Amino acid sequence: MSMPIPSMPSMPKRDIESKDSQDTVFVSLRQGSRHEATIHDDTFLEAVDHSRLFWSRIRATCRDAFSEFFGTMILILFGDGVVAQVVLSHEEKGNYQSISWGWGLGVMLGVYTSGMSGGHINPAVTFAFCVFRKFPWRKFPIYAISQVLGAMCGAAIVYGNYKSAIDVYEGGKGIRTVPGYSKTASAGIFCTYPAEFMTRTGMFFSEFIASSILMFLIFALKDDGNLGAGPLVPLALFFVIFGIGACFGWETGYAINLARDFGPRLTSYMIGYGREVWTAGNYYFWVPMVAPFFGCTFGGWLYDMFLYTGADSPVNTPWMGLKRLLPYWKQNQVLQSQA
Amino acid sequence: MSMPIPSMPSMPKRDIESKDSQDTVFVSLRQGSRHEATIHDDTFLEAVDHSRLFWSRIRATCRDAFSEFFGTMILILFGDGVVAQVVLSHEEKGNYQSISWGWGLGVMLGVYTSGMSGGHINPAVTFAFCVFRKFPWRKFPIYAISQVLGAMCGAAIVYGNYKSAIDVYEGGKGIRTVPGYSKTASAGIFCTYPAEFMTRTGMFFSEFIASSILMFLIFALKDDGNLGAGPLVPLALFFVIFGIGACFGWETGYAINLARDFGPRLTSYMIGYGREVWTAGNYYFWVPMVAPFFGCTFGGWLYDMFLYTGADSPVNTPWMGLKRLLPYWKQNQVLQSQA
Amino acid sequence: MSMPIPSMPSMPKRDIESKDSQDTVFVSLRQGSRHEATIHDDTFLEAVDHSRLFWSRIRATCRDAFSEFFGTMILILFGDGVVAQVVLSHEEKGNYQSISWGWGLGVMLGVYTSGMSGGHINPAVTFAFCVFRKFPWRKFPIYAISQVLGAMCGAAIVYGNYKSAIDVYEGGKGIRTVPGYSKTASAGIFCTYPAEFMTRTGMFFSEFIASSILMFLIFALKDDGNLGAGPLVPLALFFVIFGIGACFGWETGYAINLARDFGPRLTSYMIGYGREVWTAGNYYFWVPMVAPFFGCTFGGWLYDMFLYTGADSPVNTPWMGLKRLLPYWKQNQVLQSQA
Amino acid sequence: MSMPIPSMPSMPKRDIESKDSQDTVFVSLRQGSRHEATIHDDTFLEAVDHSRLFWSRIRATCRDAFSEFFGTMILILFGDGVVAQVVLSHEEKGNYQSISWGWGLGVMLGVYTSGMSGGHINPAVTFAFCVFRKFPWRKFPIYAISQVLGAMCGAAIVYGNYKSAIDVYEGGKGIRTVPGYSKTASAGIFCTYPAEFMTRTGMFFSEFIASSILMFLIFALKDDGNLGAGPLVPLALFFVIFGIGACFGWETGYAINLARDFGPRLTSYMIGYGREVWTAGNYYFWVPMVAPFFGCTFGGWLYDMFLYTGADSPVNTPWMGLKRLLPYWKQNQVLQSQA
Repeated sequence: MSMPIPSMPSMPKRDIESKDSQDTVFVSLRQGSRHEATIHDDTFLEAVDHSRLFWSRIRATCRDAFSEFFGTMILILFGDGVVAQVVLSHEEKGNYQSISWGWGLGVMLGVYTSGMSGGHINPAVTFAFCVFRKFPWRKFPIYAISQVLGAMCGAAIVYGNYKSAIDVYEGGKGIRTVPGYSKTASAGIFCTYPAEFMTRTGMFFSEFIASSILMFLIFALKDDGNLGAGPLVPLALFFVIFGIGACFGWETGYAINLARDFGPRLTSYMIGYGREVWTAGNYYFWVPMVAPFFGCTFGGWLYDMFLYTGADSPVNTPWMGLKRLLPYWKQNQVLQSQA
Repeated sequence: MSMPIPSMPSMPKRDIESKDSQDTVFVSLRQGSRHEATIHDDTFLEAVDHSRLFWSRIRATCRDAFSEFFGTMILILFGDGVVAQVVLSHEEKGNYQSISWGWGLGVMLGVYTSGMSGGHINPAVTFAFCVFRKFPWRKFPIYAISQVLGAMCGAAIVYGNYKSAIDVYEGGKGIRTVPGYSKTASAGIFCTYPAEFMTRTGMFFSEFIASSILMFLIFALKDDGNLGAGPLVPLALFFVIFGIGACFGWETGYAINLARDFGPRLTSYMIGYGREVWTAGNYYFWVPMVAPFFGCTFGGWLYDMFLYTGADSPVNTPWMGLKRLLPYWKQNQVLQSQA
Repeated sequence: MSMPIPSMPSMPKRDIESKDSQDTVFVSLRQGSRHEATIHDDTFLEAVDHSRLFWSRIRATCRDAFSEFFGTMILILFGDGVVAQVVLSHEEKGNYQSISWGWGLGVMLGVYTSGMSGGHINPAVTFAFCVFRKFPWRKFPIYAISQVLGAMCGAAIVYGNYKSAIDVYEGGKGIRTVPGYSKTASAGIFCTYPAEFMTRTGMFFSEFIASSILMFLIFALKDDGNLGAGPLVPLALFFVIFGIGACFGWETGYAINLARDFGPRLTSYMIGYGREVWTAGNYYFWVPMVAPFFGCTFGGWLYDMFLYTGADSPVNTPWMGLKRLLPYWKQNQVLQSQA
Repeated sequence: MSMPIPSMPSMPKRDIESKDSQDTVFVSLRQGSRHEATIHDDTFLEAVDHSRLFWSRIRATCRDAFSEFFGTMILILFGDGVVAQVVLSHEEKGNYQSISWGWGLGVMLGVYTSGMSGGHINPAVTFAFCVFRKFPWRKFPIYAISQVLGAMCGAAIVYGNYKSAIDVYEGGKGIRTVPGYSKTASAGIFCTYPAEFMTRTGMFFSEFIASSILMFLIFALKDDGNLGAGPLVPLALFFVIFGIGACFGWETGYAINLARDFGPRLTSYMIGYGREVWTAGNYYFWVPMVAPFFGCTFGGWLYDMFLYTGADSPVNTPWMGLKRLLPYWKQNQVLQSQA
């Protein structure tokens, strides 16, 4: 057991796990909104060197993973939750506009939750930050996996909460069907299925546009060389997601996020919705997995190409960063020619 | 009578009752939005030593109680008010979405009203602050009682305002019925009654999840080691409550608050809705009293366990604070071994 | 003609009319959001001593009147405008919720417009500031008259805009009818008429409660000894008005404002809606003129009595300010006894 | 190729293209929300003198044009997108209120996008800034052309996205009709067509009023001598546009913007909607091109005349700026008489 150290009022109480904090993308006003604890008897017990606590060390190591996990879980809890309530109550307890609201505030609150890790909650957004904002590539797989797991977990909780209502809606205990195979399908609660009139190209194009707009606006809102939303970024993201839902959400359900779509789809498969979750819409399931990466990359490139002036974008480097694609020895050569 | 003291322009005009102010949980931008009074004749009369005024001393003592009372009253005025308007006008003057709005802004404005005492307006939230943020336990009963009384008072005002409309809706002067016992029941204005298809476990689980999300997000929004909402906390809480209503509000009406549900239920019983307010839904009434405490504790623990790094949480102490459960002499022993 | 003075870049460009600025109630972040002008040829012509300009002097004198006039006009433009659009389009271009939105944002934008004079745009609010916040009584008549004139003007513009649509709605050119006297009455666009089931006491009580809540919350939002909304006050007022409309707006139409109701009523009378605008609802017209003063005074008193600690409130003076009601010589006596 | 310079952590990374930055109208909190890049191997390659990069120089030159182009494109993407979704889904995926939301957030996000150039995204707004805020006249044509091109581009993307849905809605592949000529016309997605009962004067008046309110409120929100919205300006603009849509949007569709209406109209003509896009509503198309200029000028003058005290407005100069209309030699005369 570690030795307890008497508390000193002047010592800073946070920043125990502050390493890597330069990766934080969103920054807030940071006014002292911390609840100042009143001193009582057992305070001294707690003023130990936290960095030696077993769990604190684990948490510091897994901080990004935990943060993205819970951020995406919150996103799915509200997003899938609102679809469940609207669909299962036959639009009595909400309508399409509620769904736009739900996803919008799901993103907003998910970003607040996962602020420590940058509030990505979307693998395609992480990807674009890696490409355009020097976000370390080694973090990409950790982020993506945490996001998918968080989304799966959120979908499972929504399922648990609405199990009886799904039974009533589907017309019998344990019946679980997928849109296109049944009139009372409830699988649309968890992941997206395209409208019937859509062609394959149209589906891809719709997801591509929505993802491009998303990434373009994220870069705009976070650019302090532009107007910049500052501490209002999460609120502005609410409007972005609401807007994408209201303007480009009809045709494919605006997944624009591998984790948001693939995670709950896997959960619904495991729950017992059958292999139709994969085959529906002529194997539509891969579109919302692939299109967001292309869309976010294009949207991010568009912003950097025409509006961004920061030096951290490869667009603002010689040869527009294409040098990076050259082999490593070429770079060494330059270094040596300087020496 | 106390002696009047001539006013001096440079003396600070507030903070007369500033003791205990370290308990304030929410902090705002605090810009000088105070209306600067123009000087006129009787100014000198008012520049007395306020701490000697009889009523100011009483108010300072009861500050927390008054603050939580009025905060919860505002919450119920808007919350019960919007349900009354929607139900009694047969959804002509609002719909389910309005109800989500009403409760959301009720919480937001209630928090603004009760900022002095931390803006809890929910016994389960106070409980979680006691457990996880060193909020003094001795304040818990004062808070809980004030919250219940405020909610009762708010419900009574709503009843007074809509008395004639209830008579029209129920189909006769003085008829007051409870959902499940009548087609035109109006008791649902005041407190929650579960949907018919719900099992007892489902009811509890639904309230538990909604309360967990609430507390998890309150801790997230107020954590300045995370993104933190700062002065936007009340606005973000609007979105939280709106979201819970839109996503998890159908099955049990998202009470997630003992004061919000028990207070108005008591009022409606006293008004004359009969003992059905207790028996309805197979004695459902205790679920929204008990489940929020479990839910908020779990949600708070989840946040502290995986995301919070502040030293004021027992999770970030040796043995995760379980030492606190040991007898007092054990702690003394540690003290003595140090000496 | 005044002599032109060469411009100097370092001279402050504003504050020409800054006298009396201590009356401004709302204060914003005040960051330099002013558009910095590029210098061009005729700049020197403009760097004259502005305080000598004829019109600038008039404007400085009438600042409060102009400010409240335009603030109330904006309120009515949006408020009456949204009712007109919803009613005349037979709820095709909006519904009851839009009306709540419209009045909410009308108040918000009206407050932004009339920030120089404190953003009252309601005689009852001005009254409560006089009673509880030492706002100078001599300003009350100026404020009240400006507010009524602004409301009349706003209503006239809305009428001009929707003249053809009213003709179509009423079923003939020039037909103008009042609710209760015709199925297709359009007078409800301009001012409020009570629901039919209401008693006189109920009407008064409904307006009284809504006004009390309004004033209580205005004082709460502007109290920096409480949480305080700071620069978010106009946004928070949007939620307050939306909430009052959604929760207490059905029975009497939540006038809660003499200027908002009496001004447009006068305009509608002058337009030709007939004397029914006064007789409708058994001479209801005086209720929204009188009740808000009682309501706002009570709501303000409630806040000051139980929550406010600022020395500018009479409640926080000896004898709770009732001394003020004593004759003036009594005060002189106190002064002399001190000397 | 330019010589790579080793990076130095202390050198400022932005402001490469900062010339002309005094034209920026909106200013944000500017807190360091920039993602701090982690250092890795190729950093030194990028720390070159950016002002020598070919593309950065082009972008600096075209900054205003790019900024207004993309700002207006975002506006139209959301604005036309939401109309498309609501109309083509037969109000199943949204209603009139969604349309107000969509345009409101389109403006908000468009302003965030085009903050570098002042966030005008409307030629009439640029015009009013030239007249009343010394915005340089030489920029007016660049702004206006960029705005129209951005709007055309946005409309084309919306068309591409909803092509299949338009085919279904119009009842056949390639059928494209205009309101007034067909029951299932879809041209209203792109630009505005007036309601049938409107007279020509009424149309002009409706657009004139809406534009006046817009400009009056933009000046109010950006006036730090008034309350001023500061960093909340884009959010407040959301409410302004939502309000204009909800209150004055029925009769003519509240174009209030040459670029927003003429750009997409041209696109829809090029797509193949036929010459009816020009002839519809008795050659209505010129009204939303001309009226906004008159409206915005009047609204801006009204604000400056009665409320604005800044020296950059011609209203606050001798002879209310009418001197400016005198020939240039007259000004020279004054200069010489001083010498």
